[in-house]
Amino acid sequence: MPSKVPMRLVIVGGVAGGMSAATRARRLDETASITVFERGSYVSYANCGIPYALGGVIKDDAALVLQTPQAVNDRFNIDVQINKEVLSINRENHTVDVRAKGSESIQQVPYDKLILSQGAEPFRPPIGGIDLPNVFTLQTIPDLQKVKAYLAEHGGTRVAIIGGGFIGLEVADALHNLGLEISIVEYMPHVFPPLDADLAGPLHAEIRRHNVNLLLNARIEKIEAPGIDTPGRVVLVDGVPILADLVIVVVGIRARTSLAEKANLKIGKTGVTVNPFMQTSDPDIYAVGDMIESEHRITGRALQLALAGPANRQGRLAADNIFGRKISYRGNVGTSACKVFNLTVASVGFSVTSLLQMGFDPLWVTVHPPDHAGYYPGSHPMTLKVAFEKETGRLLGAQAVGTAGIDKRIDVLATAMQAGMTMFDLEHLELAYAPPYGSAKDPVNMAGFVGSNLLRGDVNIIHAEDLKIGQDAAQIVDVRSPGEVSRGYIPYAVNIPLNKLRENVSTLDKGRRVVVYCQVGYRGYLAYRILKQKGFDVVNLDGGYKSVLEGGFKALQTSREKL
Amino acid sequence: MPSKVPMRLVIVGGVAGGMSAATRARRLDETASITVFERGSYVSYANCGIPYALGGVIKDDAALVLQTPQAVNDRFNIDVQINKEVLSINRENHTVDVRAKGSESIQQVPYDKLILSQGAEPFRPPIGGIDLPNVFTLQTIPDLQKVKAYLAEHGGTRVAIIGGGFIGLEVADALHNLGLEISIVEYMPHVFPPLDADLAGPLHAEIRRHNVNLLLNARIEKIEAPGIDTPGRVVLVDGVPILADLVIVVVGIRARTSLAEKANLKIGKTGVTVNPFMQTSDPDIYAVGDMIESEHRITGRALQLALAGPANRQGRLAADNIFGRKISYRGNVGTSACKVFNLTVASVGFSVTSLLQMGFDPLWVTVHPPDHAGYYPGSHPMTLKVAFEKETGRLLGAQAVGTAGIDKRIDVLATAMQAGMTMFDLEHLELAYAPPYGSAKDPVNMAGFVGSNLLRGDVNIIHAEDLKIGQDAAQIVDVRSPGEVSRGYIPYAVNIPLNKLRENVSTLDKGRRVVVYCQVGYRGYLAYRILKQKGFDVVNLDGGYKSVLEGGFKALQTSREKL
Repeated sequence: MPSKVPMRLVIVGGVAGGMSAATRARRLDETASITVFERGSYVSYANCGIPYALGGVIKDDAALVLQTPQAVNDRFNIDVQINKEVLSINRENHTVDVRAKGSESIQQVPYDKLILSQGAEPFRPPIGGIDLPNVFTLQTIPDLQKVKAYLAEHGGTRVAIIGGGFIGLEVADALHNLGLEISIVEYMPHVFPPLDADLAGPLHAEIRRHNVNLLLNARIEKIEAPGIDTPGRVVLVDGVPILADLVIVVVGIRARTSLAEKANLKIGKTGVTVNPFMQTSDPDIYAVGDMIESEHRITGRALQLALAGPANRQGRLAADNIFGRKISYRGNVGTSACKVFNLTVASVGFSVTSLLQMGFDPLWVTVHPPDHAGYYPGSHPMTLKVAFEKETGRLLGAQAVGTAGIDKRIDVLATAMQAGMTMFDLEHLELAYAPPYGSAKDPVNMAGFVGSNLLRGDVNIIHAEDLKIGQDAAQIVDVRSPGEVSRGYIPYAVNIPLNKLRENVSTLDKGRRVVVYCQVGYRGYLAYRILKQKGFDVVNLDGGYKSVLEGGFKALQTSREKL
Repeated sequence: MPSKVPMRLVIVGGVAGGMSAATRARRLDETASITVFERGSYVSYANCGIPYALGGVIKDDAALVLQTPQAVNDRFNIDVQINKEVLSINRENHTVDVRAKGSESIQQVPYDKLILSQGAEPFRPPIGGIDLPNVFTLQTIPDLQKVKAYLAEHGGTRVAIIGGGFIGLEVADALHNLGLEISIVEYMPHVFPPLDADLAGPLHAEIRRHNVNLLLNARIEKIEAPGIDTPGRVVLVDGVPILADLVIVVVGIRARTSLAEKANLKIGKTGVTVNPFMQTSDPDIYAVGDMIESEHRITGRALQLALAGPANRQGRLAADNIFGRKISYRGNVGTSACKVFNLTVASVGFSVTSLLQMGFDPLWVTVHPPDHAGYYPGSHPMTLKVAFEKETGRLLGAQAVGTAGIDKRIDVLATAMQAGMTMFDLEHLELAYAPPYGSAKDPVNMAGFVGSNLLRGDVNIIHAEDLKIGQDAAQIVDVRSPGEVSRGYIPYAVNIPLNKLRENVSTLDKGRRVVVYCQVGYRGYLAYRILKQKGFDVVNLDGGYKSVLEGGFKALQTSREKL
């Protein structure tokens, strides 16, 4: 029931989190006065669609605009004011200072409760030429319009994308549609930093298969504008300059905290600090979305996260709490997916690299099952890597890449993770199986089987990145068929096809460790079981030869010896 | 480590559960003697692929045969004997009597542990003509070969499928590929009995859109074979006879319990009784797969279930327990999916109909969100219905139908259900969002929002099947736009578009209940919030007008009155 004195709610920012908060507030209270100030000229637009609108996959930019201020007002009786920037917060008086774009006058607006949903600023690295007119960031509809206008006016066929993260890859994928020549310039050794290197391998191949010029470990010296006779270029510290008529910079974001800072609200390392009710250090001021730090469910640590789903839920929750419902935000697990040409990559929780950096001591397994039954047409193998706690089997992270069924498996694993499930639970998980959709043993079950075997001591594994080869290392046994071996193998390996292993056990040296491997890990596991029961010290190569290939690990960079 | 005296394990049945048990046993014990008796001539084949092999979607029947006896022996050192039937079990002596096909002599084979994995028998209803040579069941590779041979020899363009369940629909879908004229004859009022009627509506439309002659509530009098001058027919008690050169009977299965019965093992209502370790009433005899009853996780009751995933896991678990690992089966939730032409239908847990029949008093909600962001090309709406406990919000069942993303949402909900999650948990679930894959508010979140609103009393709903119309019923308010209304509406409704509702509240009678509805339920919910806060007794129509249309409910069968 509405309170007697109508609540005055002011919201700063009219995209995902802000608009979710505003509409939820109205559903909870018909009498509240709800005002949204948006400094840009659009509210409630789908910024996740911007790469696709640039590439013409989404034909009409207007499709991105989900609501106009007028439509929001008509439906929700919410006062949406665009082109209005909130300059400061007077916490004592409970007012904000607001200035309209192009105006000098400042309006003082009172609030009972204030919600900040200001998002994050695209980061522009301090590179020479970063402010040139052909260099763009790509976050808002005006950003999109500027890039389109530049292309329309100046033409241009060569685009350099600085940053090989989520948005950089989406932009590359979308722009490829337009027939442009694309370069991706990534500072790190692999694209998509939330991923481990071995999962990025298939992405690199896919990107290059589409004739994109992919530069990794690339340090940019400067950007040069196109001259009258000279092409625009991105000049690297080391390497051939990249010709670029247009440069798009998508190297990450920084939470917009300056308004909150000015108001002396508590700021964390990466964003505004909030409690589980989305309250800042001032109980009458809430903050949501990309500008805040929220608790990560795996580590319990505060972390900034730029995802639309959490931003929307946080906005809804801020309104819930303002209107008297005590509902806690449960923290993030960082579930995300990205289309990279014909591949999908998705992840949840942390990569093994991140876990190790944070001081975790996880176990992890890699499987390469098909997305659906191999005997039904159109089946494709995926790579699925799951990390978990050594002591309990609790899920810590999952990453997958492949042609089909990737988002499904990561969503299932994200659900399992949020439920606190372990690898043992994945063994038992009953998932839908019909030939077009899955297998009697789903990829998630497969990961569960391998992980549980490892936890129970039924198998011991070695990861491709830890594999040492050479005369003094372990004996390596390739248990694949000779035909498979002829297409590539690990140096120093001996080939004993699995079906011949029992009868050839005596050819192996019981005094030395044996590393067995097959193509994807299953036959290696069977070989492990045979050799282990014969008394060998044996380990199976996790994910098999395919993981070595995809990861581009040392073992392969050694010159190949004769078997 | 292997025991001193090698275990003698005998397995009856060499398909899903049996072969999973055999290979797991070998992985656990290199020394065990493992023998599999299969009465058919194939082991380890993908019976789930048979409809597709019949329809030529799978080009080569051989693709269904995952393993030959020889290959299993070569790899696993397992003695696989095909065309051998186990006739009886002598529990006291720990032997089974085995007879080879076409032979009279009986072989006595000793066992220490016995696993039964005999599957289920296709049910042949007692109809006149059921044993005619043009009437087939379709469970095994020989069944498949018989149908193909019949078609090759006799030709025929008209196929009647008796039974509109899972396999019947897959067969219809697959045979449609061959350009045959197909009829489906279903005894019940709708296809796919695990589903509620409203979810089956879109399936009926899709089936008929593919020119399949779909007969519901159809009682068969007899089947007539094709004569020299007369076509084969399926004659109904009531209605036009169906011309059918070939009849495929897929009306369900019965657990194969006769061997277990003869051995005086405990049998339940629908299959052999086992404990959570897959042990029958004789601790040395295990049983797995379609022939047993296992506990349903929702009801705790024993139920027969014919799904390959559970069969495989049960087989693996029986071997685990035999070789000293006490691992309990966790029961089933019945997760399944089925391709029906361009639609997918999937479900987990129980339908509302089943829950009500079993004496549950559930709540349920229906949503129609798109499979991925509407602004990205190729988005399709789905229908998702979720049932849950009134008191706790615990998930009891979920059903979905649509063009894309159906199996994903049901797998997520199946995972949530197995984790014991509630509707409140679905609100918070963080799932992967990128425009090609989902929305910031995933369909699963949407169901969670609606369900949680209902549980918290933030909305009250009425289901389409309960909607009464007429002068003496509630006032019905259609809050859609006039354009939408012009394409169809609920009789007796008045049209007040949502954005005009606040200003037109006074035109409604506060003394009578108001039913609000829109196209899919969201605007109806907004209207509910407005009217409720104005003091009205109001309910929102669950799933909106779309649910009425899809369900074909009474409200629409009444003659349409003028607005």
